[in-house]
Formats: sequence, structure tokens, C-alpha cells
Amino acid sequence: MNFTALHQQIKQQTDASLVALIDDLPEHAPRLKAAMRHALLAGGKRMRPLLVQLVGNVLDVPKRDQLAISVAIECIHAYSLVHDDLPAMDDDDLRRGQPTCHIAFDEATAILAGDALQAIAFSHLADTQLSEFAHANRAKLLSILAKASGYVGMCGGQAIDLASTGTTIDLAALKTLHTLKTGALLKACVEMTCIAAESLDEGAQEKLLAYAEQIGLAFQVQDDILDVEGSSEQLGKPAGSDIALGKNTFPAKLGLEGAKKERAALHNNALQALTGLPYNTESLIAFSELLVKRDH
Amino acid sequence: MNFTALHQQIKQQTDASLVALIDDLPEHAPRLKAAMRHALLAGGKRMRPLLVQLVGNVLDVPKRDQLAISVAIECIHAYSLVHDDLPAMDDDDLRRGQPTCHIAFDEATAILAGDALQAIAFSHLADTQLSEFAHANRAKLLSILAKASGYVGMCGGQAIDLASTGTTIDLAALKTLHTLKTGALLKACVEMTCIAAESLDEGAQEKLLAYAEQIGLAFQVQDDILDVEGSSEQLGKPAGSDIALGKNTFPAKLGLEGAKKERAALHNNALQALTGLPYNTESLIAFSELLVKRDH
Repeated sequence: MNFTALHQQIKQQTDASLVALIDDLPEHAPRLKAAMRHALLAGGKRMRPLLVQLVGNVLDVPKRDQLAISVAIECIHAYSLVHDDLPAMDDDDLRRGQPTCHIAFDEATAILAGDALQAIAFSHLADTQLSEFAHANRAKLLSILAKASGYVGMCGGQAIDLASTGTTIDLAALKTLHTLKTGALLKACVEMTCIAAESLDEGAQEKLLAYAEQIGLAFQVQDDILDVEGSSEQLGKPAGSDIALGKNTFPAKLGLEGAKKERAALHNNALQALTGLPYNTESLIAFSELLVKRDH
Repeated sequence: MNFTALHQQIKQQTDASLVALIDDLPEHAPRLKAAMRHALLAGGKRMRPLLVQLVGNVLDVPKRDQLAISVAIECIHAYSLVHDDLPAMDDDDLRRGQPTCHIAFDEATAILAGDALQAIAFSHLADTQLSEFAHANRAKLLSILAKASGYVGMCGGQAIDLASTGTTIDLAALKTLHTLKTGALLKACVEMTCIAAESLDEGAQEKLLAYAEQIGLAFQVQDDILDVEGSSEQLGKPAGSDIALGKNTFPAKLGLEGAKKERAALHNNALQALTGLPYNTESLIAFSELLVKRDH
């Protein structure tokens, strides 16, 4: 199966699992349930599930465990977007060409939907059937996900983003911001999958995590470049919104050409990190290319 | 040690553990860290840690495990208050006589502080040292906490509360609302402590959970009564705010005298649930009395 077909398949399987997760909930709070569904299913690219499952295939992690990790990660990712879009945060009305959660529903429901999506990420990972090996490491999986989501990960990065918006921070601080805000969850994709792998070559986890760190930054640089170069139609949200919000971005810091060089360097670092691994890492190379070449 | 002294001791130990939890965080997002600390330490009564530790003492659960459960529960409780107080939710400026998180900081920081407190509840419970027995059941502990916090628990109850505010719901629906919104987390206190107990008499968990369910409702009825009868000074927030918000309450439904009868009946049911347990349940009886007799 080629890479695009595999991505498509993983997207469909993840979507189906997410639908099942929501459909299984009782009906006592129908508006909240609908908001959770909207947040989870309004057209995500499922980059994180793709990463989990590419690494999982490389490391022979059972499909069931790959999917469980993917669903939990995607719930965290979806909740973070709902809260980031709130009026008190980035105040975005559109995402992926669709109304954001607080526009489609209301602000209170969006806050709650984010909260409930965070909780269901953990309850799903705590409860869903896993292979025997992954089950024995369930608490470790939950620990990685919780840390990547919280103060020492995504929430911390978002707080630095808020604090630095409208001010100027240096390149190192910008990288720290995104290493936490976007990078921590991408790294968790890889780390959780390594934990679920029954056998792992010495040093492999370290190399895969280094790869994740570099693609996490490359992903963000590309996001910033698209905000400058992309069209609102491609992006499904207004282009140029970073500048409008006074955000620190790589193009603002390095110029557009400088940002493109940074993107190439990070992509190259990611590929370097993979060298010496005793696996077929073709799909991981393709994933890094997908991140830096995507147009939305 | 008498009950009041024990409550005081548990409060101090819980506070110290919560301070340590926050102090151990790195400094990369100081405003978020300060907001998390404010939310956790602005004068909670620590009713949930008290419940955990009373049940834990009855069931011989090691102190370390009691404290770990208490800290995790209190992080979830604190996050829920921060989000409930937001302008889009109950829009409260004061809690326990102090400015609420979004007043002391700002709305974006309060949203993030809640999010990060939810995450740290899970990471703490996943990572902190537990006794061997509780450690072996860590994933189960995390599962209970996640479910009690999410759609099938607290968030679901809050959504029903939002949906029913300004409309009239019947007594059964009001009880369902609070069984989820307040009751689920109180029940989780008991259920998690039972899971951490190495030996448990047959049927004991069921009886203790029935007790938790009844005191959860009694707690809420008393909250509603205090909103009518208490002074703003006692409560540390404006009295009468439920009525101002158009909330469904037990006094609104049953009259003040009817609500007091309901409170007595629930307290009585709670004590009934404890009968036949082969433990000294004196402290649990005292806890139920504390809940229904408290003036703030």
C-alpha cells in the first residue's frame, strides 16, 4: 500500500473509532455529546494517529494498541483546539472550513466539551482492551499522555504563547514554546508507541524521540509559513491570522526565506535522527516530507 | 484524635502535598503556575480528601495511597471550580472570599489553569509512588477518576445544569444532575479508596458507594439551603446566586422546609447504607453530619 492510501486508511479507522467512542456515550447531555462529536469529527487530518501507526508498524506494535493510543491522542488534540479557539484565547470562528465549537454551539458548551474530551482521552486509554504487553504498561502510557498534555507539555506551551503574544521573543524561546505547545503531543505519539512495543532496539527510542522533536518543530514552521503563503480557502481558516494576533512566528523572526531554510534544516535533522535505526524507516521519512510539504 | 482535629490534620497534609506538587513544576510558564496554585490553594475545605482518608483509615489503606488519591481528586475538583466560575459559565467573581481565577488572573489563563489541573491530576496519580498493592491497580484508579470527571460524571452533570438553568426540571432530573455533577467525584473518592484496599469485606464496596451517593446528594441539598439561608460573608461568595442565575435547586423545588426534610432523609439513607458493615464507621457518620450541618 502506498503512503497516501495508508494515510487514508488510518484516517478512516481513526474516524470510525472516534465515532464509536462518542456513540457509546449515554444520552443524558445531548448538547455536550454533539459538541464533543463536532470537535472530534470536523475534518481532522489525523496526523498524530498517522505518526502513531507508522511508528507502530515499524516496531510491530499490535494494531489494537496503535488505535487505542491514536484515539486518546486525538481526543487531547481535539480538546486543545476547542479551547484554543475560544474568544478568550485565539477567538477563531472557523477551523477546517467549519464553525469552531463555540460558534456551532456556545462558549460554555465548548469549554465543557474540551474538558470532557480531555477526560475521555484518559478513560479510553485506561479502559479499552489492549494487548497483554501494552496492558501491563497502561499506567506508563497514561503518565506520558498526561504529562504531554499538561503544564510540562501542551498547556505550558500555550501559556508561553499567550504570554509572548504582542511581545518579541528570541528564536530559542520560540522553539521552546513550540516544543511544548505542538511538540510534546507529537513526541508522546512516538513515546507511547515505543512503550507498547514488546521489543525495541537499544537506542531506538531515543532516536525516534529526536525524530519526533524535529518534525514537531518543522510542523510548526510549516504552519507559520502557510499562514503567510496559504489562502484562507486552502487553510479552512483566515490566512494571516498569526500576524493579526501579534503572534511570534518563524517567518516574523527569520523572514520567509529564513523560515523555509529552517524548515529544511529541521526536516534534515529529522532524517538524520533516523539513520542507524535497524528498521525500514521509509514511511517515517515520507511522514516528515508530508509535514513540510503540506498546503493546509 | 477527635474528628475536628483529624479534619484539620488531613487539610494540612493535603495542602502541603498540593503546594509541593505545584512547587515542583518548572518555571517556564510562571503566570499559569501561579494560577494553578491560586486555584488549588485559595482556601478549600478539603472535604474530598477527608472522605478519602476516613474511608482509607476504615479499610487500612496506606497513608501514602490515601494522599495520592486525595491530591488527584482535589486537582480535578479545583479545575472544575475554575471553569464553573468563568464568565461563560456561572460568571462568579468571588469564591471562598477570594477573587476567582479569571478575576485574579485573566480568562485565558483560567481556562488553561483548569486544563492543566485536570492533566496534573492524572499525571500525579500515574507517577506518584504508591504502595505495591495500589500500584498494581493504578490503571483502575486512573480509570475511575477519568470517568468520574468526564461526560459520564462531572462534565455531564454540569452540561445538564447548563441545559436546565432557566427551565424547570422535576425532582428526579435534579437528583440525576447532582448525582453526576457533585456526586460522581465524591463516589470516586470512595471507589478509588476501595480499589486501594488490600482486603475488603464482601458487599462492603457496594455499601460504601451507596453511602457516598446519599451524602453526595445531601451535600448538594445543603449547598442549596445555604444559598438561601447563609450570609455572603459566611459563604465567601454572594448568597442567593442560584436564584439570580435561574438554577434549579432543592429549595425552589421542595420549599425550604421540604429541602430540609430531604436533607434529613438523605443523611438518614447514608447512615442506613453503613449498617451491617464490619467496621467502625463512626467517622463516616460524623462526616455525613459535617456535610449537612456545615454553615459554609
